[in-house]
Amino acid sequence: MSRIAAVTVTPVAFRDPPLLNAVGVHEPYALRAIVEITTDAGVTGLGETYADEGHLARLAVVAEAVVGQDVFALNRIHERAGQALAGDTGSDGHGLTGLITTSGTVDRVFSPFEVACLDVQGKLLGRPVSDLLGGAVRERVPFSAYLFYKWAAHPGGEPDAWGAALDPDGIVAQARTMLDRYGFSAVKLKGGVFPPEQEIAAIRALRKEFPALPLRLDPNAAWNVQTSVEVGRALAGVLEYLEDPTPGIAGMAEVAGRVPMPLATNMCVVGFDEVPDAVRAGSVGVILSDHHYWGGLQRSRVLAGICDTFGLGLSMHSNSHLGVSLAAMVHLAAATPNLRYACDTHWPWKREDEDVVRPGALAFERGSVAVPTGPGLGIELDRDALARLHEQFLACGLRNRDDTGYMRRVDPGYELVQPRW
Amino acid sequence: MSRIAAVTVTPVAFRDPPLLNAVGVHEPYALRAIVEITTDAGVTGLGETYADEGHLARLAVVAEAVVGQDVFALNRIHERAGQALAGDTGSDGHGLTGLITTSGTVDRVFSPFEVACLDVQGKLLGRPVSDLLGGAVRERVPFSAYLFYKWAAHPGGEPDAWGAALDPDGIVAQARTMLDRYGFSAVKLKGGVFPPEQEIAAIRALRKEFPALPLRLDPNAAWNVQTSVEVGRALAGVLEYLEDPTPGIAGMAEVAGRVPMPLATNMCVVGFDEVPDAVRAGSVGVILSDHHYWGGLQRSRVLAGICDTFGLGLSMHSNSHLGVSLAAMVHLAAATPNLRYACDTHWPWKREDEDVVRPGALAFERGSVAVPTGPGLGIELDRDALARLHEQFLACGLRNRDDTGYMRRVDPGYELVQPRW
Repeated sequence: MSRIAAVTVTPVAFRDPPLLNAVGVHEPYALRAIVEITTDAGVTGLGETYADEGHLARLAVVAEAVVGQDVFALNRIHERAGQALAGDTGSDGHGLTGLITTSGTVDRVFSPFEVACLDVQGKLLGRPVSDLLGGAVRERVPFSAYLFYKWAAHPGGEPDAWGAALDPDGIVAQARTMLDRYGFSAVKLKGGVFPPEQEIAAIRALRKEFPALPLRLDPNAAWNVQTSVEVGRALAGVLEYLEDPTPGIAGMAEVAGRVPMPLATNMCVVGFDEVPDAVRAGSVGVILSDHHYWGGLQRSRVLAGICDTFGLGLSMHSNSHLGVSLAAMVHLAAATPNLRYACDTHWPWKREDEDVVRPGALAFERGSVAVPTGPGLGIELDRDALARLHEQFLACGLRNRDDTGYMRRVDPGYELVQPRW
Repeated sequence: MSRIAAVTVTPVAFRDPPLLNAVGVHEPYALRAIVEITTDAGVTGLGETYADEGHLARLAVVAEAVVGQDVFALNRIHERAGQALAGDTGSDGHGLTGLITTSGTVDRVFSPFEVACLDVQGKLLGRPVSDLLGGAVRERVPFSAYLFYKWAAHPGGEPDAWGAALDPDGIVAQARTMLDRYGFSAVKLKGGVFPPEQEIAAIRALRKEFPALPLRLDPNAAWNVQTSVEVGRALAGVLEYLEDPTPGIAGMAEVAGRVPMPLATNMCVVGFDEVPDAVRAGSVGVILSDHHYWGGLQRSRVLAGICDTFGLGLSMHSNSHLGVSLAAMVHLAAATPNLRYACDTHWPWKREDEDVVRPGALAFERGSVAVPTGPGLGIELDRDALARLHEQFLACGLRNRDDTGYMRRVDPGYELVQPRW
């Protein structure tokens, strides 16, 4: 037995540029929580998750419920998390994912504990986490460039190194910088910010500049069905997939039948509860997995199996994240044979000097990250950095992600409308 | 790295009573193959599977293909098995399961290698296999009594201790003996042998004798849709589930909509390929998992996740098997939270003195088996017994399961008809 003797949850904040999306703009800091479990023998494991107030409260409830459990008892820990959170229905608070059911809430809260337990398991065995997931089928995991419309600076702040990107030229320049720096082999544009014709123009400009790269557009359900169909048809042969053009399983199904490319989602299917309706309706061709809300790495493999069984493609979603999440994503992606799309990551938007893991374990080369081969996740916590980013959390004053509220403080006339066009 | 240095596949035969079913009668010996892998460091792991000629040939092909692979590289081993068997489409040869696709064939051949690798993994870690599957959620796995119509003896042979069971009284007596001996908490009758009204009478006799036990009836698709509906309605409130009354996904769907109890299957859904059509048609309420054909223990967990996601019940199927399979079944069942039915097992039909594992590790008490807590599967190979049962395989002359051919040798007028009634 390797029992969980203690759990520490540390909320942290790291700087985030003013990235625009369908519900507003990223605030100056992104919030995450680092979950650290320590066994009775002193072995530690790491997980990373969201840090909104409600989520932190739930993490605290589950942290207490899992003390004393064996790190291999993942089924029981999941069951305990469910009991501890019975009837609790979360919300992402920022409007970028769908309704979160109770079981979805349990999966979100369980996830960092599961990852931390797998980290410990790997350390006990002297094996990378990917080996606990059936073994890596690829030595490197390819990622996609993640382009955002953005302001040059946060209001009242200094311009960042990326500069503004508010039109096709700005997006192409951003893509060029990001590709030069990271070598990504696919490109995703976060849309839903400007009227669709401007975003179509941006995609066309990207296609012109990068004739061979797979392109994706994600307006976060900013369009109605008709607009979605028009955009989809306008970009026939250009997009690898169109991500969440319109809200809901029914709307997505309507669009799916009338556009030439597959639809992808991380909004209308964000938990196992939503899979059956989406499958029956034929709403999506690709599911963007995300171990942070699909209940950790082992349950994400179940999602992968569902996609494989039902002929759905599988890609990977990302929120703003630190190195613990990146390591977990890389192990999972490496051990998921049918993950055939380059994964999303917000990594380039994070400052290199802000992370909680010691540098070196995870590096982008030619758009991909080598799967760590050391025991567990293959990363080490940098306690000084953790303390620094925790201080930053305390000091920054942000306690929930609120892209819309931030936008309203800048533009009091801004309204949250979905679909907007 | 723990590389596979050698693989040994040993076909064995053990005595089997004359159990009747929809396609004939069990021959005097049941055939199985024991797969043993040895790592470069000399650690061994065990798997058990079918031993028909075609399957043995495929096992030999894959055995060669996996030498040199890491025992943790289960994804790659599955991939290699698929490459080695590309285009090969198997058949169960005995008509008790459905069409087997190429991917289903790969899963069948891969399974004993996966189980053997997990056995090694557990030994390396000092952990039971259940811990590699998310951890046991139950300490004991409940099994169901598995009743068969049977002759008193194989033709020309001595009567066995069970005696004949050819009518309701014989079935009730058999159930009584089996329940007294093993304490099972559910009862399944293998039907499809006599006209449906006789089998309805047997189930009613069981209900009268055992008012509280869940009852199941499995005619192996011996009935047409109309007969299935009539039997289902006649046994309303009596059966826990009705298993494979009629052939095919479409036929099962028709029956499912017209009978009061859930339909279960191990015939119309025997691989991932068949799941989508069955889900769309609503053919079944319960899938009988079986790691021997669902691609091992980890892939059986994917099946469990699919059942959980799509609101399907999950039970467990059994063929005639030895202790290696029983151990694997117990670890899997223990680590599968949504396996809520007592599992099938042919165990009582096997002579106690015929097995390939040393006695003691697996014992039925009150109808359930305690999950082994030792490293790996928690069982030890008895090499003398293995050699003995291998000699028996060589001597018995059987090379394929052929219930129909055996029945025809006894009753030349016997014809294979599906559905028969």
